[in-house]
Amino acid sequence: MDIDALQKRFRQFADERDWNQFHTPKNLAMALSVEASELLEHFQWLSAQESSELSEEKLNQVRQEMADVFLYLIRLADKLDINLEDAVEEKMVLNAKKYPADKVKGSAKKYTDYQDDPS
Amino acid sequence: MDIDALQKRFRQFADERDWNQFHTPKNLAMALSVEASELLEHFQWLSAQESSELSEEKLNQVRQEMADVFLYLIRLADKLDINLEDAVEEKMVLNAKKYPADKVKGSAKKYTDYQDDPS
Amino acid sequence: MDIDALQKRFRQFADERDWNQFHTPKNLAMALSVEASELLEHFQWLSAQESSELSEEKLNQVRQEMADVFLYLIRLADKLDINLEDAVEEKMVLNAKKYPADKVKGSAKKYTDYQDDPS
Amino acid sequence: MDIDALQKRFRQFADERDWNQFHTPKNLAMALSVEASELLEHFQWLSAQESSELSEEKLNQVRQEMADVFLYLIRLADKLDINLEDAVEEKMVLNAKKYPADKVKGSAKKYTDYQDDPS
Repeated sequence: MDIDALQKRFRQFADERDWNQFHTPKNLAMALSVEASELLEHFQWLSAQESSELSEEKLNQVRQEMADVFLYLIRLADKLDINLEDAVEEKMVLNAKKYPADKVKGSAKKYTDYQDDPS
Repeated sequence: MDIDALQKRFRQFADERDWNQFHTPKNLAMALSVEASELLEHFQWLSAQESSELSEEKLNQVRQEMADVFLYLIRLADKLDINLEDAVEEKMVLNAKKYPADKVKGSAKKYTDYQDDPS
Repeated sequence: MDIDALQKRFRQFADERDWNQFHTPKNLAMALSVEASELLEHFQWLSAQESSELSEEKLNQVRQEMADVFLYLIRLADKLDINLEDAVEEKMVLNAKKYPADKVKGSAKKYTDYQDDPS
Repeated sequence: MDIDALQKRFRQFADERDWNQFHTPKNLAMALSVEASELLEHFQWLSAQESSELSEEKLNQVRQEMADVFLYLIRLADKLDINLEDAVEEKMVLNAKKYPADKVKGSAKKYTDYQDDPS
């Protein structure tokens, strides 16, 4: 995926609509969070099992919400001059250290405890 | 960015930790939403102006939260067998139709009205 | 519960700290959403069953997050001059009309369809 | 406000619709978070100033979202057997200790630093 090209298209899209006045980092973080909740809404009353067996119609709605989350994420990265690819790479390395496989493997309890760790 | 390769790494990461039992689409949508809110939290008391002038320390924290959002997003896409790149492309085309530049350009009011449009 | 008295206390609390400059409705809505996500975080990896059997420690954390949500809610209501009690009463009447017991009773599918209804 | 009476009404409302199967604490926490985001959505593109000058129509929409947040909050409290009134009282006392007026008064920076404090 060519993030740079997508960011450039979104930038032009916003420029043409004079939307930069609304696209402050603060507002974009809000929009991203709102889209993440619209995604969440599709799952709120489903069982774990049902959430793995979405109808085609529901899956298409979920897909669109995920695209919205992605678009606001790269727009915010653009505005803050953050390289998402580098950020993701570094975070995966960090996570591997934070959750060593031999320590967290297997039990829900351990997993949850680690996840609750505020560090 | 090679989404497939990142998804494969995250899949292996979760497999090694026996985390697939927790990574239902429902739970991943929750985790994504929680991370989006952790991102939002950094901006909640800032003015629009301040949100564009983050300190290096704050910017680094924001960068890590954005990586977390991205990682859960591609993990969820993997679990639902959604091609994010195609989804984003289609959404950008949809948005161009939904918000024609000549109609929404310029005023906050028009923008807001369009954004509130539930269609 | 004496909402007016709580709002008065929170108002005084904010006044003494010179926090009104931060407590715009926009920022308070953000803070409320962030607290709701902190509440959500406690449940994200739990099964439905586990979420009904919280440990005393976890329950206490959940309780505090719920208090935070409540406090920002009444603070926002105060700032917008909204009578929460009246709003809740009207919404319960609306909901009774929107979800007639004889139509939505029993099946998850019906419930979900109704919940998805954007009206 | 008579929280007990409201909880009893909501309990009966859910019973009549056979909704207890969906109203696990986990799902209710999700629903609460989703409603908080629907509330947030109304503010996402507004300036701080505009968020204090909502139109009557917008204010009515905001009012309904706030009622939804409140209703899921008391429903969750009912399911977890949490006394919201006591929780709120304790949290206000805690906050007074956590943010001493003489220390946090006046500057945004101090306020933000305190708010970021994970303790």
